[in-house]
Amino acid sequence: MKTSNSPLSVTIVGAGNVATHLALALASRGVAVQGICSRTMASASALAHRVGAVASDSLATMAEADVYLLAVKDDALAEIAASWPSARRGGVVLHTAGSIAMDVIAPATAHYGVLYPMQTFTKDNAVDYSRVTCFIEGNDEVSLATARSLSSMIFGRTEELSTADRQQLHLAAVFACNFTNHMYALAYEVLERHGIDPTCLQPLVEQTAHKLATTHPHDGQTGPARRHDHVVTDKHLQALSAAPELQHIYRLLSESIEQRY
Amino acid sequence: MKTSNSPLSVTIVGAGNVATHLALALASRGVAVQGICSRTMASASALAHRVGAVASDSLATMAEADVYLLAVKDDALAEIAASWPSARRGGVVLHTAGSIAMDVIAPATAHYGVLYPMQTFTKDNAVDYSRVTCFIEGNDEVSLATARSLSSMIFGRTEELSTADRQQLHLAAVFACNFTNHMYALAYEVLERHGIDPTCLQPLVEQTAHKLATTHPHDGQTGPARRHDHVVTDKHLQALSAAPELQHIYRLLSESIEQRY
Repeated sequence: MKTSNSPLSVTIVGAGNVATHLALALASRGVAVQGICSRTMASASALAHRVGAVASDSLATMAEADVYLLAVKDDALAEIAASWPSARRGGVVLHTAGSIAMDVIAPATAHYGVLYPMQTFTKDNAVDYSRVTCFIEGNDEVSLATARSLSSMIFGRTEELSTADRQQLHLAAVFACNFTNHMYALAYEVLERHGIDPTCLQPLVEQTAHKLATTHPHDGQTGPARRHDHVVTDKHLQALSAAPELQHIYRLLSESIEQRY
Repeated sequence: MKTSNSPLSVTIVGAGNVATHLALALASRGVAVQGICSRTMASASALAHRVGAVASDSLATMAEADVYLLAVKDDALAEIAASWPSARRGGVVLHTAGSIAMDVIAPATAHYGVLYPMQTFTKDNAVDYSRVTCFIEGNDEVSLATARSLSSMIFGRTEELSTADRQQLHLAAVFACNFTNHMYALAYEVLERHGIDPTCLQPLVEQTAHKLATTHPHDGQTGPARRHDHVVTDKHLQALSAAPELQHIYRLLSESIEQRY
Protein backbone atom coordinates (compact mmCIF):
# COMPACT_ATOMS: atom_id res chain seq x y z
CA MET A 1 0.00 0.00 0.00
CA LYS A 2 1.08 3.54 -0.71
CA THR A 3 1.05 6.10 2.06
CA SER A 4 -2.09 8.17 2.16
CA ASN A 5 -0.84 11.20 0.23
CA SER A 6 0.83 9.51 -2.72
CA PRO A 7 -1.25 9.11 -5.90
CA LEU A 8 -3.02 5.79 -6.26
CA SER A 9 -2.40 3.52 -9.20
CA VAL A 10 -5.33 1.50 -10.54
CA THR A 11 -5.88 -1.64 -12.59
CA ILE A 12 -9.37 -2.20 -13.96
CA VAL A 13 -10.84 -5.64 -14.49
CA GLY A 14 -13.48 -5.34 -17.21
CA ALA A 15 -13.73 -3.37 -20.45
CA GLY A 16 -17.47 -2.72 -20.75
CA ASN A 17 -19.43 0.50 -20.25
CA VAL A 18 -18.68 1.05 -16.56
CA ALA A 19 -15.01 0.04 -16.94
CA THR A 20 -14.63 2.40 -19.89
CA HIS A 21 -16.19 5.38 -18.12
CA LEU A 22 -14.14 4.81 -14.94
CA ALA A 23 -10.88 4.26 -16.82
CA LEU A 24 -11.28 7.42 -18.87
CA ALA A 25 -12.40 9.47 -15.88
CA LEU A 26 -9.49 8.30 -13.71
CA ALA A 27 -6.94 8.84 -16.46
CA SER A 28 -8.28 12.34 -17.07
CA ARG A 29 -7.73 13.11 -13.36
CA GLY A 30 -4.10 12.05 -13.63
CA VAL A 31 -4.48 8.66 -11.99
CA ALA A 32 -2.06 6.05 -13.36
CA VAL A 33 -4.27 3.38 -14.89
CA GLN A 34 -1.70 0.57 -14.95
CA GLY A 35 -3.70 -2.25 -16.45
CA ILE A 36 -6.92 -3.24 -18.19
CA CYS A 37 -7.80 -6.90 -17.78
CA SER A 38 -10.62 -8.44 -19.81
CA ARG A 39 -11.54 -11.93 -20.99
CA THR A 40 -10.85 -11.01 -24.59
CA MET A 41 -7.53 -9.42 -25.44
CA ALA A 42 -9.11 -7.29 -28.17
CA SER A 43 -11.41 -5.40 -25.80
CA ALA A 44 -8.70 -5.11 -23.14
CA SER A 45 -6.28 -3.68 -25.69
CA ALA A 46 -8.80 -1.23 -27.12
CA LEU A 47 -9.46 0.37 -23.71
CA ALA A 48 -5.85 0.03 -22.50
CA HIS A 49 -4.71 1.95 -25.56
CA ARG A 50 -6.99 4.88 -24.67
CA VAL A 51 -5.57 5.29 -21.16
CA GLY A 52 -1.95 4.20 -21.65
CA ALA A 53 -2.38 0.96 -19.70
CA VAL A 54 -1.09 -2.58 -20.16
CA ALA A 55 -3.70 -4.99 -21.54
CA SER A 56 -4.10 -8.54 -20.29
CA ASP A 57 -6.63 -11.32 -20.72
CA SER A 58 -6.06 -13.16 -17.44
CA LEU A 59 -5.90 -12.17 -13.78
CA ALA A 60 -2.48 -13.87 -13.48
CA THR A 61 -0.93 -11.45 -15.97
CA MET A 62 -2.71 -8.22 -15.07
CA ALA A 63 -0.60 -5.22 -14.12
CA GLU A 64 0.11 -4.69 -10.42
CA ALA A 65 -1.53 -1.62 -8.82
CA ASP A 66 -2.63 -0.13 -5.49
CA VAL A 67 -6.31 -0.58 -6.34
CA TYR A 68 -8.12 -3.14 -8.47
CA LEU A 69 -11.55 -2.05 -9.73
CA LEU A 70 -13.79 -4.93 -10.71
CA ALA A 71 -16.23 -3.51 -13.28
CA VAL A 72 -17.56 -6.82 -14.58
CA LYS A 73 -20.86 -8.67 -14.80
CA ASP A 74 -22.34 -9.49 -11.38
CA ASP A 75 -22.05 -13.25 -11.79
CA ALA A 76 -18.34 -13.04 -12.64
CA LEU A 77 -17.37 -11.46 -9.29
CA ALA A 78 -17.32 -14.60 -7.14
CA GLU A 79 -15.22 -16.49 -9.64
CA ILE A 80 -12.76 -13.60 -9.97
CA ALA A 81 -12.41 -13.36 -6.19
CA ALA A 82 -11.86 -17.12 -5.90
CA SER A 83 -9.14 -17.16 -8.54
CA TRP A 84 -7.39 -13.96 -7.46
CA PRO A 85 -3.62 -14.40 -7.94
CA SER A 86 -1.56 -14.47 -4.74
CA ALA A 87 0.89 -11.96 -6.25
CA ARG A 88 -1.95 -9.36 -6.36
CA ARG A 89 -3.19 -9.77 -2.80
CA GLY A 90 -1.44 -6.59 -1.61
CA GLY A 91 -3.94 -4.18 -3.10
CA VAL A 92 -7.41 -2.91 -2.32
CA VAL A 93 -10.10 -4.60 -4.45
CA LEU A 94 -13.37 -2.73 -5.09
CA HIS A 95 -16.37 -3.89 -7.09
CA THR A 96 -18.91 -1.61 -8.76
CA ALA A 97 -22.10 -3.71 -8.60
CA GLY A 98 -25.33 -2.42 -7.11
CA SER A 99 -26.82 -5.67 -5.91
CA ILE A 100 -23.76 -7.70 -4.86
CA ALA A 101 -22.59 -7.89 -1.25
CA MET A 102 -19.20 -6.40 -0.50
CA ASP A 103 -18.12 -9.70 1.07
CA VAL A 104 -18.11 -11.54 -2.23
CA ILE A 105 -14.59 -10.15 -2.76
CA ALA A 106 -13.29 -11.28 0.63
CA PRO A 107 -11.45 -14.33 -0.78
CA ALA A 108 -9.27 -12.05 -2.93
CA THR A 109 -7.62 -9.75 -0.42
CA ALA A 110 -7.57 -8.33 3.09
CA HIS A 111 -8.85 -4.93 1.94
CA TYR A 112 -12.00 -4.80 -0.13
CA GLY A 113 -15.03 -2.69 -0.73
CA VAL A 114 -17.47 -1.15 -3.19
CA LEU A 115 -17.57 1.88 -5.45
CA TYR A 116 -21.12 2.23 -6.83
CA PRO A 117 -21.87 5.37 -8.85
CA MET A 118 -25.59 6.16 -9.13
CA GLN A 119 -25.68 6.63 -12.88
CA THR A 120 -26.28 4.65 -16.05
CA PHE A 121 -23.25 4.35 -18.30
CA THR A 122 -23.61 3.80 -22.02
CA LYS A 123 -20.88 3.99 -24.60
CA ASP A 124 -20.75 7.35 -26.38
CA ASN A 125 -22.98 9.09 -23.81
CA ALA A 126 -21.08 11.72 -21.87
CA VAL A 127 -21.77 11.89 -18.14
CA ASP A 128 -21.47 14.97 -15.94
CA TYR A 129 -19.70 13.26 -13.04
CA SER A 130 -19.85 16.37 -10.88
CA ARG A 131 -23.58 15.81 -10.35
CA VAL A 132 -23.31 12.07 -9.66
CA THR A 133 -23.33 10.57 -6.17
CA CYS A 134 -21.03 7.57 -5.69
CA PHE A 135 -21.84 5.17 -2.84
CA ILE A 136 -18.91 3.44 -1.18
CA GLU A 137 -18.38 0.64 1.28
CA GLY A 138 -15.22 -0.85 2.79
CA ASN A 139 -14.37 -3.73 5.09
CA ASP A 140 -11.80 -1.65 7.00
CA GLU A 141 -10.36 1.85 7.20
CA VAL A 142 -7.83 1.23 4.43
CA SER A 143 -10.36 0.10 1.86
CA LEU A 144 -12.90 2.75 2.89
CA ALA A 145 -10.31 5.54 2.64
CA THR A 146 -9.17 4.22 -0.75
CA ALA A 147 -12.73 4.02 -2.08
CA ARG A 148 -13.41 7.54 -0.80
CA SER A 149 -10.24 8.86 -2.39
CA LEU A 150 -10.95 7.39 -5.82
CA SER A 151 -14.63 8.32 -5.72
CA SER A 152 -14.01 11.92 -4.74
CA MET A 153 -11.54 12.30 -7.61
CA ILE A 154 -14.35 11.59 -10.09
CA PHE A 155 -17.78 12.19 -8.56
CA GLY A 156 -19.43 15.26 -7.10
CA ARG A 157 -20.67 13.49 -3.97
CA THR A 158 -19.42 10.42 -2.11
CA GLU A 159 -21.59 8.66 0.49
CA GLU A 160 -20.96 5.58 2.60
CA LEU A 161 -23.73 2.98 2.25
CA SER A 162 -24.17 -0.58 3.54
CA THR A 163 -24.63 -3.55 1.21
CA ALA A 164 -28.29 -3.86 2.26
CA ASP A 165 -29.06 -0.21 1.53
CA ARG A 166 -27.10 -0.31 -1.72
CA GLN A 167 -29.38 -3.12 -2.88
CA GLN A 168 -32.40 -0.92 -2.15
CA LEU A 169 -30.76 1.86 -4.11
CA HIS A 170 -30.13 -0.45 -7.04
CA LEU A 171 -33.75 -1.57 -6.90
CA ALA A 172 -34.90 2.06 -6.93
CA ALA A 173 -32.62 2.70 -9.91
CA VAL A 174 -34.31 -0.14 -11.80
CA PHE A 175 -37.61 1.74 -11.41
CA ALA A 176 -36.14 5.17 -12.16
CA CYS A 177 -34.00 4.13 -15.13
CA ASN A 178 -34.72 0.66 -16.57
CA PHE A 179 -38.49 0.69 -16.13
CA THR A 180 -38.68 4.34 -17.17
CA ASN A 181 -36.84 3.48 -20.38
CA HIS A 182 -39.29 0.63 -20.89
CA MET A 183 -42.17 3.14 -20.62
CA TYR A 184 -40.46 5.08 -23.43
CA ALA A 185 -40.18 1.84 -25.43
CA LEU A 186 -43.89 1.08 -25.01
CA ALA A 187 -44.81 4.64 -26.04
CA TYR A 188 -42.64 4.22 -29.15
CA GLU A 189 -44.36 0.91 -29.92
CA VAL A 190 -47.79 2.59 -29.78
CA LEU A 191 -46.74 5.39 -32.11
CA GLU A 192 -44.72 3.27 -34.53
CA ARG A 193 -47.69 0.93 -34.90
CA HIS A 194 -49.70 3.94 -36.10
CA GLY A 195 -47.02 5.52 -38.27
CA ILE A 196 -46.57 8.55 -35.98
CA ASP A 197 -43.01 9.86 -35.55
CA PRO A 198 -42.18 9.11 -31.88
CA THR A 199 -39.48 11.76 -31.60
CA CYS A 200 -42.23 14.30 -30.88
CA LEU A 201 -42.23 12.81 -27.35
CA GLN A 202 -38.69 14.01 -26.56
CA PRO A 203 -39.55 17.43 -25.02
CA LEU A 204 -42.27 15.75 -22.92
CA VAL A 205 -39.82 13.11 -21.72
CA GLU A 206 -37.17 15.67 -20.82
CA GLN A 207 -39.64 17.97 -19.09
CA THR A 208 -40.89 15.05 -16.99
CA ALA A 209 -37.31 14.25 -15.94
CA HIS A 210 -36.38 17.87 -15.22
CA LYS A 211 -39.51 18.48 -13.18
CA LEU A 212 -38.26 15.86 -10.73
CA ALA A 213 -35.35 18.17 -9.83
CA THR A 214 -37.78 20.63 -8.24
CA THR A 215 -40.98 18.69 -7.56
CA HIS A 216 -41.54 15.49 -5.55
CA PRO A 217 -42.93 12.89 -7.99
CA HIS A 218 -46.05 12.42 -5.88
CA ASP A 219 -46.87 16.11 -6.30
CA GLY A 220 -45.72 16.18 -9.94
CA GLN A 221 -48.03 13.39 -11.13
CA THR A 222 -50.39 14.41 -13.96
CA GLY A 223 -52.67 12.56 -16.37
CA PRO A 224 -56.00 10.75 -16.47
CA ALA A 225 -55.26 8.17 -13.72
CA ARG A 226 -54.39 10.85 -11.19
CA ARG A 227 -57.65 12.63 -12.04
CA HIS A 228 -59.56 9.31 -11.78
CA ASP A 229 -60.75 10.14 -15.30
CA HIS A 230 -62.19 6.79 -16.34
CA VAL A 231 -63.64 8.15 -19.55
CA VAL A 232 -60.09 8.62 -20.83
CA THR A 233 -58.51 5.55 -19.22
CA ASP A 234 -61.32 3.33 -20.58
CA LYS A 235 -60.78 4.83 -24.03
CA HIS A 236 -57.04 4.08 -23.77
CA LEU A 237 -57.68 0.51 -22.62
CA GLN A 238 -60.02 0.09 -25.57
CA ALA A 239 -57.36 1.47 -27.93
CA LEU A 240 -54.95 -1.18 -26.58
CA SER A 241 -57.32 -4.10 -27.17
CA ALA A 242 -55.02 -5.42 -29.92
CA ALA A 243 -52.02 -5.29 -27.54
CA PRO A 244 -53.08 -7.23 -24.42
CA GLU A 245 -49.66 -6.93 -22.75
CA LEU A 246 -49.68 -3.14 -22.99
CA GLN A 247 -53.31 -3.12 -21.88
CA HIS A 248 -52.38 -5.12 -18.78
CA ILE A 249 -49.51 -2.75 -17.95
CA TYR A 250 -51.71 0.29 -18.57
CA ARG A 251 -54.40 -1.04 -16.23
CA LEU A 252 -51.98 -1.99 -13.45
CA LEU A 253 -50.08 1.31 -13.48
CA SER A 254 -53.27 3.38 -13.69
CA GLU A 255 -54.67 1.55 -10.66
CA SER A 256 -51.39 2.05 -8.85
CA ILE A 257 -51.56 5.80 -9.50
CA GLU A 258 -55.27 6.07 -8.59
CA GLN A 259 -54.66 4.40 -5.23
CA ARG A 260 -52.32 7.22 -4.26
CA TYR A 261 -54.68 10.16 -4.94
CA MET B 1 -63.57 36.34 -39.20
CA LYS B 2 -60.53 38.50 -39.84
CA THR B 3 -58.77 38.32 -43.17
CA SER B 4 -55.85 35.96 -43.16
CA ASN B 5 -53.09 38.51 -42.57
CA SER B 6 -54.58 40.51 -39.71
CA PRO B 7 -53.56 39.46 -36.22
CA LEU B 8 -55.90 37.06 -34.49
CA SER B 9 -57.53 37.90 -31.20
CA VAL B 10 -58.08 35.12 -28.71
CA THR B 11 -60.30 34.38 -25.73
CA ILE B 12 -59.31 31.47 -23.52
CA VAL B 13 -61.82 29.35 -21.65
CA GLY B 14 -60.04 27.85 -18.68
CA ALA B 15 -57.45 29.14 -16.21
CA GLY B 16 -55.49 25.99 -15.35
CA ASN B 17 -52.00 24.90 -16.37
CA VAL B 18 -52.59 24.61 -20.12
CA ALA B 19 -54.67 27.80 -20.24
CA THR B 20 -52.00 29.68 -18.32
CA HIS B 21 -49.13 28.51 -20.54
CA LEU B 22 -51.05 29.27 -23.76
CA ALA B 23 -52.27 32.67 -22.55
CA LEU B 24 -48.77 33.78 -21.53
CA ALA B 25 -47.16 32.40 -24.71
CA LEU B 26 -49.72 34.07 -26.99
CA ALA B 27 -49.49 37.39 -25.16
CA SER B 28 -45.70 37.28 -25.38
CA ARG B 29 -46.02 36.87 -29.19
CA GLY B 30 -48.16 40.00 -29.38
CA VAL B 31 -51.49 38.24 -29.76
CA ALA B 32 -54.40 40.15 -28.21
CA VAL B 33 -55.75 37.89 -25.49
CA GLN B 34 -59.17 39.49 -25.13
CA GLY B 35 -60.71 37.38 -22.44
CA ILE B 36 -60.14 34.70 -19.83
CA CYS B 37 -63.27 32.80 -18.88
CA SER B 38 -63.28 30.43 -15.92
CA ARG B 39 -65.89 29.01 -13.55
CA THR B 40 -64.48 30.97 -10.65
CA MET B 41 -63.96 34.70 -11.07
CA ALA B 42 -60.87 34.64 -8.86
CA SER B 43 -58.88 32.34 -11.14
CA ALA B 44 -60.15 34.07 -14.29
CA SER B 45 -59.08 37.45 -12.88
CA ALA B 46 -55.66 36.22 -11.78
CA LEU B 47 -54.75 35.03 -15.27
CA ALA B 48 -56.55 37.85 -17.08
CA HIS B 49 -54.53 40.34 -15.06
CA ARG B 50 -51.25 38.78 -16.30
CA VAL B 51 -52.15 39.13 -20.00
CA GLY B 52 -54.27 42.30 -20.01
CA ALA B 53 -57.51 40.43 -20.71
CA VAL B 54 -61.08 40.81 -19.47
CA ALA B 55 -62.08 38.20 -16.89
CA SER B 56 -65.47 36.51 -16.86
CA ASP B 57 -67.05 33.58 -15.05
CA SER B 58 -69.65 32.61 -17.65
CA LEU B 59 -69.63 31.92 -21.38
CA ALA B 60 -72.40 34.49 -21.87
CA THR B 61 -70.18 37.32 -20.64
CA MET B 62 -66.80 36.28 -22.09
CA ALA B 63 -64.99 38.73 -24.35
CA GLU B 64 -65.59 38.38 -28.10
CA ALA B 65 -62.59 37.21 -30.16
CA ASP B 66 -61.60 35.60 -33.48
CA VAL B 67 -60.58 32.38 -31.76
CA TYR B 68 -61.81 30.68 -28.59
CA LEU B 69 -59.39 28.23 -27.03
CA LEU B 70 -61.04 25.70 -24.74
CA ALA B 71 -58.32 24.63 -22.27
CA VAL B 72 -60.59 22.92 -19.76
CA LYS B 73 -61.12 19.49 -18.28
CA ASP B 74 -62.12 16.88 -20.89
CA ASP B 75 -65.55 16.27 -19.42
CA ALA B 76 -66.44 19.97 -19.48
CA LEU B 77 -66.07 20.27 -23.27
CA ALA B 78 -69.44 18.82 -24.32
CA GLU B 79 -71.34 21.00 -21.85
CA ILE B 80 -69.45 24.12 -22.98
CA ALA B 81 -70.20 23.33 -26.63
CA ALA B 82 -73.88 22.75 -25.86
CA SER B 83 -74.27 26.03 -23.99
CA TRP B 84 -72.18 28.16 -26.35
CA PRO B 85 -73.76 31.65 -26.59
CA SER B 86 -75.22 32.53 -29.99
CA ALA B 87 -73.43 35.90 -29.90
CA ARG B 88 -70.08 34.03 -29.96
CA ARG B 89 -70.82 31.72 -32.88
CA GLY B 90 -68.79 33.80 -35.34
CA GLY B 91 -65.40 32.61 -34.17
CA VAL B 92 -63.23 29.53 -34.51
CA VAL B 93 -63.38 27.27 -31.45
CA LEU B 94 -60.42 24.98 -30.72
CA HIS B 95 -60.02 22.54 -27.87
CA THR B 96 -56.70 21.31 -26.47
CA ALA B 97 -57.57 17.80 -25.28
CA GLY B 98 -55.61 14.74 -26.38
CA SER B 99 -58.35 12.15 -26.16
CA ILE B 100 -61.47 14.08 -27.16
CA ALA B 101 -62.85 14.00 -30.70
CA MET B 102 -62.82 17.27 -32.59
CA ASP B 103 -66.55 16.91 -33.27
CA VAL B 104 -67.49 17.42 -29.64
CA ILE B 105 -67.29 21.17 -30.34
CA ALA B 106 -69.52 21.03 -33.42
CA PRO B 107 -72.63 22.33 -31.56
CA ALA B 108 -70.80 25.58 -30.74
CA THR B 109 -69.82 26.94 -34.12
CA ALA B 110 -69.33 26.29 -37.82
CA HIS B 111 -65.52 26.39 -37.53
CA TYR B 112 -63.89 24.18 -34.97
CA GLY B 113 -60.80 22.15 -34.42
CA VAL B 114 -58.01 21.08 -32.08
CA LEU B 115 -54.69 22.48 -30.89
CA TYR B 116 -52.85 19.76 -28.97
CA PRO B 117 -49.28 20.53 -27.91
CA MET B 118 -47.23 17.42 -27.08
CA GLN B 119 -45.93 18.62 -23.73
CA THR B 120 -46.84 18.50 -20.06
CA PHE B 121 -47.64 21.86 -18.54
CA THR B 122 -47.19 22.52 -14.86
CA LYS B 123 -47.38 25.84 -13.10
CA ASP B 124 -43.96 27.39 -12.50
CA ASN B 125 -42.17 25.07 -14.95
CA ALA B 126 -40.85 26.92 -17.98
CA VAL B 127 -41.28 25.19 -21.33
CA ASP B 128 -39.05 25.61 -24.39
CA TYR B 129 -41.86 25.88 -26.92
CA SER B 130 -39.45 25.92 -29.85
CA ARG B 131 -38.82 22.18 -29.37
CA VAL B 132 -42.48 21.23 -28.92
CA THR B 133 -44.63 19.76 -31.69
CA CYS B 134 -48.26 20.91 -31.69
CA PHE B 135 -50.82 18.66 -33.41
CA ILE B 136 -53.77 20.39 -35.06
CA GLU B 137 -57.05 19.37 -36.58
CA GLY B 138 -59.82 21.40 -38.20
CA ASN B 139 -63.26 20.71 -39.64
CA ASP B 140 -62.66 23.04 -42.60
CA GLU B 141 -60.00 25.22 -44.16
CA VAL B 142 -60.81 28.22 -41.96
CA SER B 143 -60.41 26.37 -38.69
CA LEU B 144 -57.36 24.46 -39.90
CA ALA B 145 -55.63 27.65 -41.08
CA THR B 146 -56.47 29.35 -37.79
CA ALA B 147 -55.14 26.46 -35.73
CA ARG B 148 -51.98 26.39 -37.84
CA SER B 149 -51.49 30.12 -37.48
CA LEU B 150 -51.83 30.11 -33.68
CA SER B 151 -49.75 26.97 -33.28
CA SER B 152 -46.88 28.19 -35.42
CA MET B 153 -46.73 31.43 -33.42
CA ILE B 154 -45.87 29.41 -30.31
CA PHE B 155 -44.51 25.99 -31.16
CA GLY B 156 -41.46 24.85 -33.12
CA ARG B 157 -43.37 22.30 -35.18
CA THR B 158 -47.00 22.05 -36.24
CA GLU B 159 -48.45 18.81 -37.63
CA GLU B 160 -51.97 17.93 -38.76
CA LEU B 161 -53.32 14.80 -37.05
CA SER B 162 -56.70 13.06 -37.05
CA THR B 163 -58.74 12.54 -33.88
CA ALA B 164 -58.00 8.79 -33.96
CA ASP B 165 -54.24 9.29 -34.26
CA ARG B 166 -54.27 12.04 -31.63
CA GLN B 167 -55.82 9.55 -29.20
CA GLN B 168 -52.93 7.15 -29.89
CA LEU B 169 -50.51 10.00 -29.29
CA HIS B 170 -52.19 10.85 -25.99
CA LEU B 171 -52.01 7.19 -25.00
CA ALA B 172 -48.29 7.13 -25.84
CA ALA B 173 -47.82 10.29 -23.78
CA VAL B 174 -49.41 8.57 -20.78
CA PHE B 175 -46.66 5.95 -20.99
CA ALA B 176 -43.85 8.44 -21.68
CA CYS B 177 -44.87 11.01 -19.07
CA ASN B 178 -47.49 9.87 -16.53
CA PHE B 179 -46.26 6.30 -16.11
CA THR B 180 -42.64 7.42 -16.22
CA ASN B 181 -43.34 9.85 -13.39
CA HIS B 182 -45.00 7.02 -11.50
CA MET B 183 -41.78 4.97 -11.88
CA TYR B 184 -39.97 7.92 -10.25
CA ALA B 185 -42.59 7.93 -7.48
CA LEU B 186 -42.13 4.20 -6.81
CA ALA B 187 -38.32 4.63 -6.75
CA TYR B 188 -38.76 7.46 -4.22
CA GLU B 189 -41.03 5.23 -2.11
CA VAL B 190 -38.35 2.51 -1.99
CA LEU B 191 -35.63 4.94 -0.93
CA GLU B 192 -37.72 6.96 1.52
CA ARG B 193 -38.78 3.74 3.25
CA HIS B 194 -35.07 3.07 3.88
CA GLY B 195 -34.07 6.61 4.79
CA ILE B 196 -31.95 7.12 1.66
CA ASP B 197 -32.08 10.58 0.07
CA PRO B 198 -33.85 10.01 -3.28
CA THR B 199 -32.41 13.11 -4.94
CA CYS B 200 -29.30 11.05 -5.78
CA LEU B 201 -31.44 9.57 -8.60
CA GLN B 202 -31.72 12.88 -10.48
CA PRO B 203 -28.64 12.53 -12.76
CA LEU B 204 -29.71 8.96 -13.60
CA VAL B 205 -33.23 10.11 -14.44
CA GLU B 206 -31.99 12.94 -16.64
CA GLN B 207 -29.42 10.77 -18.41
CA THR B 208 -32.14 8.21 -19.18
CA ALA B 209 -34.32 10.94 -20.71
CA HIS B 210 -31.49 12.54 -22.68
CA LYS B 211 -30.31 9.22 -24.08
CA LEU B 212 -33.68 8.91 -25.81
CA ALA B 213 -32.77 11.89 -28.01
CA THR B 214 -30.03 9.87 -29.69
CA THR B 215 -30.87 6.21 -29.02
CA HIS B 216 -34.05 4.24 -29.78
CA PRO B 217 -35.41 3.02 -26.41
CA HIS B 218 -35.23 -0.61 -27.53
CA ASP B 219 -31.49 -0.24 -28.09
CA GLY B 220 -31.00 1.93 -25.00
CA GLN B 221 -32.51 -0.54 -22.52
CA THR B 222 -30.15 -1.56 -19.70
CA GLY B 223 -30.54 -3.40 -16.40
CA PRO B 224 -31.02 -6.90 -15.01
CA ALA B 225 -34.23 -7.75 -16.93
CA ARG B 226 -32.65 -7.02 -20.30
CA ARG B 227 -29.71 -9.26 -19.31
CA HIS B 228 -32.15 -11.97 -18.12
CA ASP B 229 -30.21 -11.74 -14.84
CA HIS B 230 -32.57 -13.63 -12.53
CA VAL B 231 -30.12 -13.59 -9.65
CA VAL B 232 -30.61 -9.83 -9.40
CA THR B 233 -34.32 -9.73 -10.30
CA ASP B 234 -35.09 -12.46 -7.74
CA LYS B 235 -33.13 -10.51 -5.13
CA HIS B 236 -35.15 -7.37 -5.95
CA LEU B 237 -38.46 -9.26 -5.79
CA GLN B 238 -37.40 -10.60 -2.40
CA ALA B 239 -36.50 -7.07 -1.24
CA LEU B 240 -40.05 -6.00 -2.22
CA SER B 241 -41.78 -8.76 -0.24
CA ALA B 242 -43.17 -6.18 2.20
CA ALA B 243 -44.59 -4.14 -0.70
CA PRO B 244 -46.71 -6.56 -2.75
CA GLU B 245 -47.97 -3.90 -5.15
CA LEU B 246 -44.44 -2.81 -6.09
CA GLN B 247 -43.43 -6.46 -6.32
CA HIS B 248 -46.26 -7.11 -8.78
CA ILE B 249 -45.27 -4.12 -10.92
CA TYR B 250 -41.58 -5.11 -10.79
CA ARG B 251 -42.40 -8.64 -11.95
CA LEU B 252 -44.72 -7.55 -14.77
CA LEU B 253 -42.34 -4.93 -16.17
CA SER B 254 -39.31 -7.22 -15.91
CA GLU B 255 -41.19 -9.91 -17.84
CA SER B 256 -42.24 -7.34 -20.40
CA ILE B 257 -38.61 -6.30 -20.91
CA GLU B 258 -37.30 -9.88 -21.02
CA GLN B 259 -39.78 -10.82 -23.75
CA ARG B 260 -38.21 -8.21 -26.04
CA TYR B 261 -34.57 -9.39 -25.81
